[in-house]
This record gives sequence, C-alpha cells and structure tokens, in this order.
Amino acid sequence: MKKLLLPFTFLLIINSCFGQKPRARDLGVPFIGTPGKLNSITDVAGVEVGYSTIIEGKGENTIGKGPIRTGVTAIFPRGKVKKFSPVYANWYSLNGNGEMTGTTWVTESGFLETPIMITNTNSVGVVRDAVLKWYVDTDWYSGEDWWYTYPVVAETYDGFLNDIYGFHIKEKHVLEAIDNASTGKIAEGNVGGGTGMMCLGFKGGTGTASRMVKIKDSTYTLGVLVQSNFGAKKNLTIAGVPVGRELRDTLNYVNNAPPKSRRKEGDGSIIVVVATDAPLLSHQLKRITQRVPLGIALVGGYGSNGSGDIFIAFSTANENAFSRDEITVIETLPNDHMTPLFEATAQAVEEAIINAMIAAETMEGINKNKAHAIPHDLLINVLKNCNKMN
Amino acid sequence: MKKLLLPFTFLLIINSCFGQKPRARDLGVPFIGTPGKLNSITDVAGVEVGYSTIIEGKGENTIGKGPIRTGVTAIFPRGKVKKFSPVYANWYSLNGNGEMTGTTWVTESGFLETPIMITNTNSVGVVRDAVLKWYVDTDWYSGEDWWYTYPVVAETYDGFLNDIYGFHIKEKHVLEAIDNASTGKIAEGNVGGGTGMMCLGFKGGTGTASRMVKIKDSTYTLGVLVQSNFGAKKNLTIAGVPVGRELRDTLNYVNNAPPKSRRKEGDGSIIVVVATDAPLLSHQLKRITQRVPLGIALVGGYGSNGSGDIFIAFSTANENAFSRDEITVIETLPNDHMTPLFEATAQAVEEAIINAMIAAETMEGINKNKAHAIPHDLLINVLKNCNKMN
Amino acid sequence: MKKLLLPFTFLLIINSCFGQKPRARDLGVPFIGTPGKLNSITDVAGVEVGYSTIIEGKGENTIGKGPIRTGVTAIFPRGKVKKFSPVYANWYSLNGNGEMTGTTWVTESGFLETPIMITNTNSVGVVRDAVLKWYVDTDWYSGEDWWYTYPVVAETYDGFLNDIYGFHIKEKHVLEAIDNASTGKIAEGNVGGGTGMMCLGFKGGTGTASRMVKIKDSTYTLGVLVQSNFGAKKNLTIAGVPVGRELRDTLNYVNNAPPKSRRKEGDGSIIVVVATDAPLLSHQLKRITQRVPLGIALVGGYGSNGSGDIFIAFSTANENAFSRDEITVIETLPNDHMTPLFEATAQAVEEAIINAMIAAETMEGINKNKAHAIPHDLLINVLKNCNKMN
Amino acid sequence: MKKLLLPFTFLLIINSCFGQKPRARDLGVPFIGTPGKLNSITDVAGVEVGYSTIIEGKGENTIGKGPIRTGVTAIFPRGKVKKFSPVYANWYSLNGNGEMTGTTWVTESGFLETPIMITNTNSVGVVRDAVLKWYVDTDWYSGEDWWYTYPVVAETYDGFLNDIYGFHIKEKHVLEAIDNASTGKIAEGNVGGGTGMMCLGFKGGTGTASRMVKIKDSTYTLGVLVQSNFGAKKNLTIAGVPVGRELRDTLNYVNNAPPKSRRKEGDGSIIVVVATDAPLLSHQLKRITQRVPLGIALVGGYGSNGSGDIFIAFSTANENAFSRDEITVIETLPNDHMTPLFEATAQAVEEAIINAMIAAETMEGINKNKAHAIPHDLLINVLKNCNKMN
Repeated sequence: MKKLLLPFTFLLIINSCFGQKPRARDLGVPFIGTPGKLNSITDVAGVEVGYSTIIEGKGENTIGKGPIRTGVTAIFPRGKVKKFSPVYANWYSLNGNGEMTGTTWVTESGFLETPIMITNTNSVGVVRDAVLKWYVDTDWYSGEDWWYTYPVVAETYDGFLNDIYGFHIKEKHVLEAIDNASTGKIAEGNVGGGTGMMCLGFKGGTGTASRMVKIKDSTYTLGVLVQSNFGAKKNLTIAGVPVGRELRDTLNYVNNAPPKSRRKEGDGSIIVVVATDAPLLSHQLKRITQRVPLGIALVGGYGSNGSGDIFIAFSTANENAFSRDEITVIETLPNDHMTPLFEATAQAVEEAIINAMIAAETMEGINKNKAHAIPHDLLINVLKNCNKMN
Repeated sequence: MKKLLLPFTFLLIINSCFGQKPRARDLGVPFIGTPGKLNSITDVAGVEVGYSTIIEGKGENTIGKGPIRTGVTAIFPRGKVKKFSPVYANWYSLNGNGEMTGTTWVTESGFLETPIMITNTNSVGVVRDAVLKWYVDTDWYSGEDWWYTYPVVAETYDGFLNDIYGFHIKEKHVLEAIDNASTGKIAEGNVGGGTGMMCLGFKGGTGTASRMVKIKDSTYTLGVLVQSNFGAKKNLTIAGVPVGRELRDTLNYVNNAPPKSRRKEGDGSIIVVVATDAPLLSHQLKRITQRVPLGIALVGGYGSNGSGDIFIAFSTANENAFSRDEITVIETLPNDHMTPLFEATAQAVEEAIINAMIAAETMEGINKNKAHAIPHDLLINVLKNCNKMN
Repeated sequence: MKKLLLPFTFLLIINSCFGQKPRARDLGVPFIGTPGKLNSITDVAGVEVGYSTIIEGKGENTIGKGPIRTGVTAIFPRGKVKKFSPVYANWYSLNGNGEMTGTTWVTESGFLETPIMITNTNSVGVVRDAVLKWYVDTDWYSGEDWWYTYPVVAETYDGFLNDIYGFHIKEKHVLEAIDNASTGKIAEGNVGGGTGMMCLGFKGGTGTASRMVKIKDSTYTLGVLVQSNFGAKKNLTIAGVPVGRELRDTLNYVNNAPPKSRRKEGDGSIIVVVATDAPLLSHQLKRITQRVPLGIALVGGYGSNGSGDIFIAFSTANENAFSRDEITVIETLPNDHMTPLFEATAQAVEEAIINAMIAAETMEGINKNKAHAIPHDLLINVLKNCNKMN
Repeated sequence: MKKLLLPFTFLLIINSCFGQKPRARDLGVPFIGTPGKLNSITDVAGVEVGYSTIIEGKGENTIGKGPIRTGVTAIFPRGKVKKFSPVYANWYSLNGNGEMTGTTWVTESGFLETPIMITNTNSVGVVRDAVLKWYVDTDWYSGEDWWYTYPVVAETYDGFLNDIYGFHIKEKHVLEAIDNASTGKIAEGNVGGGTGMMCLGFKGGTGTASRMVKIKDSTYTLGVLVQSNFGAKKNLTIAGVPVGRELRDTLNYVNNAPPKSRRKEGDGSIIVVVATDAPLLSHQLKRITQRVPLGIALVGGYGSNGSGDIFIAFSTANENAFSRDEITVIETLPNDHMTPLFEATAQAVEEAIINAMIAAETMEGINKNKAHAIPHDLLINVLKNCNKMN
C-alpha cells in the first residue's frame, strides 16, 4: 500500500511545484486514444474558452444572499476576433431534463452563430440576454440595423451548493467570462459554470480532453468540454472498473451528513461541447453528438430521468461556409471516414468527465452541504487492485 | 361601392357601441368550422391569458430610450391557481429561425410544466428568469427545497417598430402579464407580446380563434393563440383570395416611405399555441402541431427562411396525469378520431392570424416606421368581388 | 353555359389532335410561379422517370386473380447511366400512416443512394428486393464483392380499385418501370404506382409540375412528382375555391353506389418526390420537404389520420459530393436564398396534385368500384363563377 | 492455468448433460442487475419468439446456389393468439446504416401493430410482404375488407458467410419463423436472423437477456433480444475488461486467413428489441431506446459508420390501449421512476450481446470464410487475470 502511494505523492509534489493540479492521466488512469498537445478543447485551433467563477459566503443559505457557488463558461468556436462567423453545428439530447437555448436555429440552419454559454439552471435567461446586450455594445453586427440571433446557453443545476434561487449571475459575470475567453490551457474542476457541480457521487465541474485522429494523410483534432453534474456514485466506473462501488465504504472516513433534499441519486446533468477541425457538415455533426452518450456510458452514466444531458458539436473547418448572399464552396469528409471521429468523441468525453472530477476540489456550500472531491489516492489503489495501473 | 360599405359601417358602429372591435367574422370573412363561444383559446376551460403591453415614446430611436412598442403574453394551461400542474404537450418547428425555450424537456417528458410566455426576440432571457423568480417569490413548489424547471418562452421580432436593442422588458412586465392572466374574452391585435408585430404586409400582433369538434358523443374544444409577425404581402390570402396582390396598389393612398433595413420580404415569425380539452397524449399533440403549417399556408405563409415558426400544443384533459410517484390512470383518444382535430387546428390557425390582422391598428414606432392596419373596407371589397361575401 | 364550355371543348380538340391530354394549366386553372419547359420533375436535368402500369380484368374481386389496377413508378435522380451516384437528400413525414423504406440511411448519411420507387402498400417488399436483385444482375456496384444498400420504396393504398391482397406486383414489373425510366415528358394520371389511386373524392394518380426559380444570377429548377391518393372531397380546393363543396351535388348525374368499406373520408396517402438542381445540403433538403404540406394545404389536405403523407427531396447538384475515400468539394446555397425555393415547392406540389386529378380518367376496379375523374367542364364552371378564370 | 480451467470444464460438462449451452453468466462473466427467470426477452409475459434457420451447402459461393447461412426471427409482442393487438412502441437509430421498415407509423401512431421480424439485409422485402400475405391467409383482420399496415422488418448483413446476393429467404421461411414463435426459453447464437452474423471480431448472432426492476410495490420485467453483427475486435470489452486487445494475439492458434473484402473493421449492425411490461407510453419508450447505445458502449461499440444500429421498444402493459373507436383508459408510469428501467435497458443489452457471442459457434460459410466463436476458456482466463472472476 505504502509502496503504491509513494509515486503518487511524489507526482503531486512535482505538480504542485509547478502550480499545476494533476489530471487523470497524470495519476496514471489509463485512457484509449491520442490526446492533443493540451488534451483540451482548445487544441482545436481558434477555440476560445473563458470563465467567470463566483465563490462567496459560507454557512446557512439566505435566498438572495448566498452562499454563492456558481459561474459562467463561454466558448467561442472561432474566437472573439472573428465576430460573426458561423460554424456548422448540430446537437442531440440524451435526456432533455435541461435547457440549451438557440437549438432550433442550429437544427434549421445547420450553423451555430453565437458563442456557447454554460451556467446554472436559473441563470440561463440573464446569460442569454447579456450576450445580446454585448452584441449591441460591441457593434457585433458591424453596423447592421436589423439583426436577430438566438444565443446558445446551456445549464446544469448547482442548487446543492449554490444559492441558486438567489439568481446571483449578473450581466457583469457574463461579460467577465467573455472577456476571459482565450485559447491555450484552460482550468478544470470548480471553475466557470461548473463551479458548484457534482458528478457520480463526488465533486464535479468543468473538464476537458481531446483526441488527434489520423484520417488518410490528414490529422484532425477533436476536443471536448464538459460541465459535468450527473450520475450516481454506485455507477461510477473508471477505466472499466466499478470504482463507485469500491469507494463506497472507504468514504466513511469523511464525516458528512447526507444531503437533505428530495434529489434522487443520479439526478443532475451533463452539458457536452464537442469541437473539431474535421470538415463535417451539420448532419455529420449530429452523428458526432449521438456518440457522446457512449462516452458517458463508460463512466457509469445512464441518462437518468432527472438529468439534462444535452450535447452540441461544431466544426471550425470551412471558415467561409456561411454567406448571406453568395454560394459558398466547402469541403466535406466522407461518411466512410467518420468512425475514428466517433471513437474519439466517446473517448474524449470519458476522459473529460474524469478530468473534471480529478480537478475538482472538495467544496462546502449552502447550509454546509459538502461535495467531496474523489480521493486520488484511494482511486489509484482501487485501479491498481484491478490491474489497471502498474 | 357605397352600397357595399354600408353594412360594414353599420357593423362598426354596432361594435363600437359595445366598445368592441370587429373581428374577421364580424366583417363577414368566411371561415370553415364551428368556433367556441368566444372564438378564443380561452374557450378551452381553464386556459388563462394575460398581457403586458408597453407603448411609450415616439420619433427617432435612441437605443435604451425608445420608442417602445413591445410586450409580454402569458398563457397558463390550467390557470394560476392550479400551480404546478403539468399538461401533456408537444411542439414542432416549421422554420426554426426563432426561439422557444424549454422544449427539450417537453419532448422528453411529454409534459409542459410551466406557463407559455411570448415576447420579443431580445427579451426571452429576462422573461424566462422572471418566471423562475416568480416561482421563488410565490413558493410555487410549495416548500420543495430542490426544484428545477425550464420555462417555455417564445418570441418574435418587433425591431421595425420597437427599440428592441434597448431591452425594455423588465421583470415587472412579466409579473404584470402573469397577474393579468385570466379566463374569458381576451384582447387581440397590438397587445402583449404581439404589440409591435407585423404580418403579411400589414400590422400584425396577437390573435385567437377556436373550434368545437364533435367526436362520437363528445364535443371537444380546440383553441389557438398566435403571435403573428410573418409573411410577405404578395402572398396574403384570405378565404382563398389572393388579397395581398389585390391590395397592393390600393395601399398607395397611404403616404409612407418603405422601411429602411435589409429585412427581406417574408421575414418575421409566428408563434402558435394550441390548447385542447381532447384527451391527447404527447405524441398525438405533436401531430396537432404538425398541422399548424396547413393553417399558415391558407393565409399565404411559406415558412420563409427568416421566420421563426414554432408551435406548441397542450391538452388540459387528464388533470391528474402527472405524478412523481404513483402510476396514473389517463384517457386517450383513438388516433382514428384525430382527423377532425387536425382540421380544427388548421382552421383555427387560419382564423386567428386573420383576427390578429383585423384587430391590429396602424402603429407608428421607432424612426416613424409605420405598420398599417389592413384596411377593412378595401378588404371587404376585394372579397365581395371574388364572390366570397354576400 | 354553352358559351363557357366552347373554349374548353375547343382546347380538348386541339389537345386530342396532338394525342395529348389537357393539364390543369391547359384548362385555365390559375397557378402561381413559373414552370419549367415540361412543367415536370424531369425539367431537373438528369432525372429519369419510368412506369409499369398493370390494368387487367374486371368485375368481382377474387383475391389473387384480380381485377388488377396497380403499378410501379421508378425515379432515378441522376439517371440509370450514372449507376451508383448518391445525391444529397432528406425526408419528412406529415402523417406517417404509410411506408417509405430506406429513410434511416438517408437521414444518417445525408445521401440518397438508390432510385426512389413508388407502388401500392402491399408491394413495397417485392419492389425493394427487386431493386437489389437488379443491382446484382447488372453489376451495379462494378465488381465490389461486399456491398449493401437500402432501396427507397414508398407506397399508397389502391385497395378500392385493385386486388391489393392478391400481391400482383412481381419482379418483372419493377424491371419494366426501371427499363422505362427516361428523361423528357412523362405521363400523368392512371400510370405507374398511381394507377389505382383516388384523391379528394375523385380519381387520383401520378402528377408532376415544376418551377423555375431565379436566385441572383442563377436560375434553378425544382420539380415535383406526386403519387396522390389522399383527401376528402368536401375539402377539395382549387385556386382558392372550395371546389369540392360546389361539385358535391353536381356529381349526382353519375349513377354510382357509395363504396362499401370502412374507409373514412380523407383516408389515403400522398407520396411526394421533390427534385432540384439548386445546390442544397441534406439539412436544407429537409427544409424543402417540410414545405410540401403547405402545397397540400392549398388543395384541401389536412394530413388525415389514415393518410401516409411522406416526402423526399434531393439535389442533383454537386455531382461529385459522394466519395468513400476523398474529401469532396461542394457548393452550398445560402439559407438566406431559400425562401423562393420554399415557395416553388409548395406551388409545384399544389399543381402536381391538380395535374394528377386532371389527367386521371374514370376507372372501374374490383367489385365494380368506380373512381370518377373530376369533371373538367364542371370544374371550369365553378372556377369561372368565382372569377378565377376569364 | 489448468486450475482455472477446471471449474469451467466441469461447468461445460454439467451443461452438456442437460443439452444446454453455457451462457455468459454460466461461465462466470459478471453482470449488474437481476435477470428474470429465463434471462430472456420471453420473461416479459406474452412475448413470443420464433426462428427460421437456414444452413445449407459449403465451399465456393455461387450466387443463387449458396452456401446459405441465414434466417428469420419473428417476435410477437402479445403472442400470435392476440392477433391485431397493438402495443405502445417507439424506436431510435444510433447509426442508420440499416433498415427497419414500418417505423414512420410507429412514430406517428405511438403503436406497434405488427410482429417485429429480423432477417438479412437483402431479404427485408420478402419478409415484409410475407407477413402481409400471412395476414391475408389467416384472416388476421377478422373479416375487415379494407385494412393496411406496415410490418416492422429489420436486418443485419451476413454476406461474409452467407450467399446474401442469392436471396434465399422465401415466404416459407417467414411462415416457419412465425409458426415457431412461442413463449419460454429461446435459442441463442447461430439461429434465426442471427445465423450468419459476426460481432466484435468473433461469431455473433442472436442473444437475449432480461432484468427485473422493482419500482415501489411493483416488479417489472424488461427483456432484450439482439441480432448482433457489429463492432471491431480491438474494442471488444467484457465486464469492463478490454478483452478484444487481450485476445488478439492468442487467436493466432487458429489458422485462418483474413477475410477478403473491403469491409472495414467495425462494420456490421445491431438490431435491438426491448420489451417491457412496465406501463410506458410511446414517448417514454423512445427514452428507453435511447439508452440502448449505453449498453452497446459497455461492450465496445461506437456506432461505426458502416453499422445499422436501430432499436425498437414496446410495452405489453395496457392491453386495451388501442381502439379505433372508443376512448381508452390506460396506466402510465411517472417519468420520475424511469431511471431503473434505463439502467435495466443498458444492462440487458450488454448481457444479450455477450450471450449472443458466447452461444454462437464457429461457422464456415461462403468461400470457406470462417467466423470463430469467442474462445470461452481464453476469455475466462483474461477476465480472471483482471480480477473479474474468482
């Protein structure tokens, strides 16, 4: 036992020296497939991600006062500089106990025109309108005097930790998330819209991962960002091992009372955003989103009735696909080459969820409700006992 | 000509004596089918409709200042008193250039849990969150400490008349629409969310109609409310007559400059809400919504690219269908009896759209943009010339 | 009366001199929009249509013996010579009381790989497998030793006139329809799959129409073929005139007993095939198919419960869109330019249905059941009385 | 090694004594959840399953002569005796590279009216029409003289082993499968439509499993039947263990050449039929079918491009739900209780696929192509090495 823990402790030390938290791969959790440089949705060139994280107050919940454990995530498919620059997109709902606005136009037009925003359930409206206000304030439509659009805003429920009925997300937080949006390495765990989320019995939140896919002479990148707030601990599976069952008793060492609510085990939600630079059309991106459940299944998700499991995918290829006036010329990948992208999607979703859990830290929220981070050392032990790590 | 106008003028006098505006039937426009007592969505027992209408300022548009020509419509399927009392529901989009939030959960669950709200394009967010705040403030969930829901909020675009980029809908307007919601006769034309809308080349807005449908020994009511903001004048058809073409030149008597914008003819949207007391399940209500386009076709709509044509239908039957815990016992109408309800849907949609136009009054909005009411007398002349009226 | 009939009679004489039956336009029925040269689906370059028409026997129905009034229609999007040459396609069902095989792969892949076949309800299977056998026999896949595909075969019900429970369509009839497939003018009425069909109270069958649509500097063709077997006479509307009601009594001059069956008025089906050379992607072709109901509404269809109203659209543009191996480069029309194509779709569907009725001739089938052709002269009178013709 | 194999050998001896093949559980493969008495779709009361299995000839393939390795499976939701007795049903396609006829009416009506038939890709048509002929011959509609229906027929591709281009399924085989349909224990592996199928690198075929689900005071049964023909060996996962990778090299002991075709790894299909006696409406059964991919993911499926992964679910509850004339009274399970059924679906799908593989026996087909059964002993070893068995 000691022998096993040593390298892990050492790893943590190494990581903390560089101010970095270990990710699932750093701990030795095995995954299939080849990640991109950052193992992040931002491996897809142009994709920008920004967060606004609000953590304020502690103790009893007074509606409108807090404590607050919530936030906003902003994802720009081609970056803010590109302004209005639609990408081919499509979406799928495994279980629609949730909200993602703006989807009817995505279905109809084949394009995603706006950033994708993710927040808590009760703040979808303020985030939506704030995006429109920001468009007005920044002259997003470059002088057009007659524009309309339908921002894509999704949500998961953080009411176990956050004063969700206090409506604490304000326009300024939306602007903050937008301002922060950038390419490069992004934070995971208790950040952005994922701040107050729980997953498969532990603290959840925001996670990301990516895969490189070689198709003929080209290598494509497919990246995933999840706001992960779903699932029952009994079903938690990592690398094929039913970790949730193994960890059940070992968690007794933490002294916490069960949450007081009528929440059913497995309630929650997961929003998944898939980005790729492979030249896929909207009907092909629908196919991508339909593979997201396969990744969720690998970690023990079943699309529980109380879960809002809604997924959107977009392709940054074909930069000039959208025009209001001229026929455009675009590239499209043969369907016969899509299987590796399907596999990449499921694999990246699986890893992004585990990354969210590994990065998340134990959080105490309203009424001292507490969501515990998955214990890295115990997890590693369980996996080792199952021959999953060496 | 004079002879023809006399009865009409007389009718107007009669109506104005009772403070009532004439509706399409009052003018003699022929429709098929038997309307309910009020020829209104509120003929369906329990349905409550409320408006908030905001008309302020005139002249040049200063963003954030006005002029304001907009509003909010609230529809409670079983009335406010029932509180949380889901109805079977489903939805369909003829052309998804628009927004209706809350639909993924309607699809998934088969139920509509919230009121249906309709407003302008840029105010969907504030309306959505305001419904949730109202739930919190009124303890809608009766002490539950862990609830979430996804308000259904739809929109059409009133930016030709309204300072839509000024975001003038506030929480108080939403509460006003909710407070005003009641059964009985409802206003049409420039009211509620329909305040600043245009339709088929003329002033549009809110309209309603209903049909009584006899199926075996039962008589069911099917009512429709439209927020009508769609279509090109060239296509306007009333009672089978291409009125839009006939009226094109006669409108020259009004001295107005063409609107200055890149708006394409036929842009706009129509939100349609269908209520019925027939015991239909959610998949049957989907069928109902798919007949809404048939009614739109009858007035000259084609689901233009720039149009958000989204429809939702619910059944107030099976009051106790929803339970979180117990198996419920419900009634369901055989599919073989649905054809009369399909016909009623198309017919009521057709009439509600015309009602919205007939009730709407000429409105001047931002920058002195003006939307003209359809001229009742000229319309009647055209129809008479086509043998449609006697 | 005599005066009115003269030009019509004259027209018929002219037409019969050239061995041609009059089409709806020839009779003076007004339609909107500009048809192509042939006013036919075959105006779309490359589209081939072929029929097998089986009319045998008369008198009492002996199952397996006849009388037979049925057939097969074959439509090749790019012609037979092109062999395997998928086109972008999509489909929509207004009322799914019918069958169109092969659609899941159309949805998934975005492509239509096979001809579209239309026959009677009970012969879908034999037609489907016969297409596959023909592929084997003609080495359609050019030596591939491992191919599979899912022929698109649709149907409507001709059991009022045809011994449908006798399963008279055989492989040879399928091959005949395929062999006959050609470009150019095509027959209408009692031909191919439409042979034994009825529509809106009269004899129905196969019809076609087309529209030319100018978008910027290009002119696109959109053509429609219908197998029309739907609707209640009371609802028949032509050029906005409720002809069905007007013709109800006048039909008393024909001495025929009502059909003996539990068929409900309005039962039946309509299969619609839309072809265009506009460069549309599969999600845009879905939009096209969703406009087919608008054309059906214009003639009095409501998508009755007993009706299988299923529509498929394809684009012959982008000839090299399909590849199993290489990224392909394709053109796509902006969504903002699609409205004229939506209008063309509804208009061509309307005209094709009327064309099917005008071309169809009175037919006696099993048990002396008789479906009457719509009486051209009476129809013209009704329209004239409504000022629709001069 | 010997020590490990002993109990397994012993088990096989025990099983062969009773003329039974071991199933996955018999071998000790661990699964989650409680199966019904037979661990079969026939645990759902009333469900009847019948097979026609055709195995003829060996050696080189002569099209039309064989060798033949194919069949037909028939599933009657309420048994043959019930005749026309529709069940609530719905369907979902993870990857539509396949065919399931009759689905548009399932979607539209909410009901499944016919048996579900499964066969090979090229025989869908003959099976469909044969069901209709059988209806005619057995007076299925009890004297009705005007009926139509749309048999549900699905398929997977057996052309690696079977002379699929020879079209060997005839009407008599369909009748045989129907005649054989019965309740009780059913065969697995190389039987019925599954006869010539392959799965995840080994011989596949027909499999079944079931789960008992306790919801409040009731216990419901959910059963699954799969025709399993999908997946790449590299992805084969059993009980969380990537068995496919482990077995890759060990299979060298079998001397077989790679198949000669352009088939891509992972091509194939899986048809899944889910039956339950829980009182679910059609929209709830759609939810069930959307969980089938979760079970497929657990064994290593990704919905490959070349795979037709189409699923249908029905509920045998509410025996009198269907009427053509009278309002019916039905029971419906709250959505809030559906999560255990979702879990049961995924678990039963997982087990049914493994059962199909375990039951399947090595088969040599056309051109001496050979599909090997998964080696039970080596599989057990791999699982034991991963601590999955004791």
